[in-house]
Amino acid sequence: MNTSIVRFILGYVLKIEAVLLIPPIITGLIYGEKQAISYVIVALVCAGLGFLMTIKKPEDTVFYLKEGCVTTALSWIFMSFFGALPFMLTGEIPHFVDAFFETVSGFTTTGASILEDVERLSHTSLLWRSFTHWIGGMGVLVFLLAIIPLTGGSNINLMKAESPGPSVGKLVPKIKSTAQILYLIYIGLCILEFILLIIGKMPIFHAICMTFGTAGTGGFGILNSSAADYTAYQQWVIAVFMLLFGINFNFYYFFLHKKWKKAIAIEEVRWYIAIILASTAIIFFNIHNALPTVEEGIRQSFFQVCSIITTSGFSTVNFDMWNTMPKLILVTLMFIGACAGSTGGGLKVSRIIILVKTFVKEASGYLHPKSIKKIKVDGESLDHDVLRSTNVYFITYVMIYIISMFLVSFEDKDLITTFTSVAATLNNIGPGLGLVGPAQNFNIMSNLSKVVLTFDMLIGRLELFPMIILFHPVLWKEALIAKEHQHKWKKMQKKACGK
Amino acid sequence: MNTSIVRFILGYVLKIEAVLLIPPIITGLIYGEKQAISYVIVALVCAGLGFLMTIKKPEDTVFYLKEGCVTTALSWIFMSFFGALPFMLTGEIPHFVDAFFETVSGFTTTGASILEDVERLSHTSLLWRSFTHWIGGMGVLVFLLAIIPLTGGSNINLMKAESPGPSVGKLVPKIKSTAQILYLIYIGLCILEFILLIIGKMPIFHAICMTFGTAGTGGFGILNSSAADYTAYQQWVIAVFMLLFGINFNFYYFFLHKKWKKAIAIEEVRWYIAIILASTAIIFFNIHNALPTVEEGIRQSFFQVCSIITTSGFSTVNFDMWNTMPKLILVTLMFIGACAGSTGGGLKVSRIIILVKTFVKEASGYLHPKSIKKIKVDGESLDHDVLRSTNVYFITYVMIYIISMFLVSFEDKDLITTFTSVAATLNNIGPGLGLVGPAQNFNIMSNLSKVVLTFDMLIGRLELFPMIILFHPVLWKEALIAKEHQHKWKKMQKKACGK
Repeated sequence: MNTSIVRFILGYVLKIEAVLLIPPIITGLIYGEKQAISYVIVALVCAGLGFLMTIKKPEDTVFYLKEGCVTTALSWIFMSFFGALPFMLTGEIPHFVDAFFETVSGFTTTGASILEDVERLSHTSLLWRSFTHWIGGMGVLVFLLAIIPLTGGSNINLMKAESPGPSVGKLVPKIKSTAQILYLIYIGLCILEFILLIIGKMPIFHAICMTFGTAGTGGFGILNSSAADYTAYQQWVIAVFMLLFGINFNFYYFFLHKKWKKAIAIEEVRWYIAIILASTAIIFFNIHNALPTVEEGIRQSFFQVCSIITTSGFSTVNFDMWNTMPKLILVTLMFIGACAGSTGGGLKVSRIIILVKTFVKEASGYLHPKSIKKIKVDGESLDHDVLRSTNVYFITYVMIYIISMFLVSFEDKDLITTFTSVAATLNNIGPGLGLVGPAQNFNIMSNLSKVVLTFDMLIGRLELFPMIILFHPVLWKEALIAKEHQHKWKKMQKKACGK
Repeated sequence: MNTSIVRFILGYVLKIEAVLLIPPIITGLIYGEKQAISYVIVALVCAGLGFLMTIKKPEDTVFYLKEGCVTTALSWIFMSFFGALPFMLTGEIPHFVDAFFETVSGFTTTGASILEDVERLSHTSLLWRSFTHWIGGMGVLVFLLAIIPLTGGSNINLMKAESPGPSVGKLVPKIKSTAQILYLIYIGLCILEFILLIIGKMPIFHAICMTFGTAGTGGFGILNSSAADYTAYQQWVIAVFMLLFGINFNFYYFFLHKKWKKAIAIEEVRWYIAIILASTAIIFFNIHNALPTVEEGIRQSFFQVCSIITTSGFSTVNFDMWNTMPKLILVTLMFIGACAGSTGGGLKVSRIIILVKTFVKEASGYLHPKSIKKIKVDGESLDHDVLRSTNVYFITYVMIYIISMFLVSFEDKDLITTFTSVAATLNNIGPGLGLVGPAQNFNIMSNLSKVVLTFDMLIGRLELFPMIILFHPVLWKEALIAKEHQHKWKKMQKKACGK
């Protein structure tokens, strides 16, 4: 394994994190909060470490999928580790397991919290907490690709490991340009949401944090009531933008280039909208009798559906109190997730499409065994590899799910809590049902469960394999052998020079 | 589609059902119960209809997988329909939906009951209820293959459609002999269990019914307490035989032919035993503190594990009162199910092995993208088709599961009840958790849910596709076209003759 390139990129990530810590520091200065000092310390540590790690440039800058996975997984762990330190230094989240849980929840855009009283936090930490959503939404490495010059076409392996969805398409031939375009769309949508919230008379600080939370489909709010206390207009804006950030970004790219037909032709987006509308309708008919106006019924249904399918996790109502059918729909949406190539989590709509089409094809196969049918998405036949990897993804997903549930069941919480706590973290949603419902938090969990669920958040955000690879024994054996070789080589060189 | 062969085989099935109704009639005579009359009437109707349907032999006896699926699905529906009539005629289960639910539950060896008080039934009906388990366990069509001479090698398509597991192996080249051997092993094991229960001083009628229930991995008991009131010895016998009937019957075949090595080499059986032992151990450590003796702890754990993994559904304790972890293990076992080629249901251990191996292979693939690894089971490389169909099976299974849950959620029962009622029927187990737990019954469900769950039992027993095919619109269109062609052909012939 090419360890020097991994080291080099990790160093770069730390330098970026130092820069990313500036916004909360500024916030601290504005509000005159002493918590800002902790952020300054951590920023300096990150910058120093990052500097040390990037002094020596790697000779070989080409790297493969394996290195891509390892780098991505380690980057996210590093980011979260250093991102958790300010919470501990300020004393706002004193225990490491909790602070790490909260930060991972932020970066992975999960939005599950261990805080019983969010409003107790300083503005500095509230902003950092929401800002992690914004950073994690598009991905740090995509950001890196957008700014640093890495030679070799193999950069795609970094993007492959970090981007959500069954297959990564480059919008334009150059990776760097693709990454830049993605970030431009991302920032553009954020500005639009921020302006619309300000027009709706939301306080600036709220508008900034809610925009970060929506953009990353995260779900950290800054009020204990999540989004329930905002006005109807503000809730509509947030709901619509959750939906927008859950759409495949290719859609916006086509849209911006006025390729309307191509944009509308994306099957995933059409399914995604159809699922949202159908779910909203069913839930509306189930809950509207208990509500004063039709508008409120539609808004509550639409908001919760958008929040869960995009895996954001904001709530305007305690949906744990709903009937079984709406709850079941929400649980199903938790697994479906948003579009590939968006900031949302879950299995992704495109994978669901592939699975449904595989099923339809197979059922017809029984009737007409000789006919060869190809599975088509967006009018094109699917590559066999994509099909196979989708099946494998699904299987792996289920297995991780079962193992996690088993570990969480040591808690002896009820089955619904056990089941949905894993669903809410592995799919990067945030709230589940029962004891981890929207009106509750994850602080009731033991440290073991918190660690398992933290791991699930990371594994879910990075789409399973990068994290699994990191814990694969073969990998470490290989790294050791490589190191030994290097050592021997140096010894030999020394000997040769000595002579 | 070759409709005449389908008609012919269905007629045969009805004739067999007429014969199968004789044991309950004899029971009625022995106990002097007037309910026997209802059984005589239904037997006569079956015999008459069967006779009419088999008068004309089909010209073309070869049939394909499509015909195999349709015949199998229709046979099971016919059997269950006529099997339900006696319950209605005797007035013991007056409503059709209930009687059909109970009979399908019997034939599919599910063991889910809508009866609140089983002990109220006549001996005649109790025996018929347990006997349906015995019939359904090995399968009616396998029985048919064992006795009637169908020409053409394509009979395998009947067996494929009815037998559980990812691939159907013929033990011996001739289908007929294979079917006969399977039935001999089945009957042999039954006699052994019956004798052991009699030695344990169980009343003869109880021993017969419990043997039927164990053999089919069914779960209908004849006491309201299921198996809780039997002695420790009797419970041990039942538990061990549940385990034995959940083993791949190939094992016994090799065993009888003294091919010990081959028998022990079956990977599925080893995994199956390992899963049972591990689950028993974990549950034991979780529950033994509350029990008076170690033996009782082991027995309760072992009995419940065997009952659930083999999808029998007998219980010696209300496991719904257990802690979360043992309950979670039982729920997981519900899905794993027994071995392929046994009388048990669920996904089957062999499919789980394939899924796990696919996962392991893929994880290594990320590390060594160029290495080509084949998935091996029992030392042989798996056929690509088996792999693919296992993946598809899994996906289809999940989809049916979600749709069923959604339909059952109209009930507005709690999520655990909704979730496990589908798990318990689709996997042919019987009891679930919550309102359908071992101490409860399915009578609390609405008619819609009962129909959905009845369908799930059938779909689970026939391993998804035969039932789905039956409801596939293309199939019926095709049948209509075929009929029209026949009609036109006859007209033309008449015209030709007239000239």
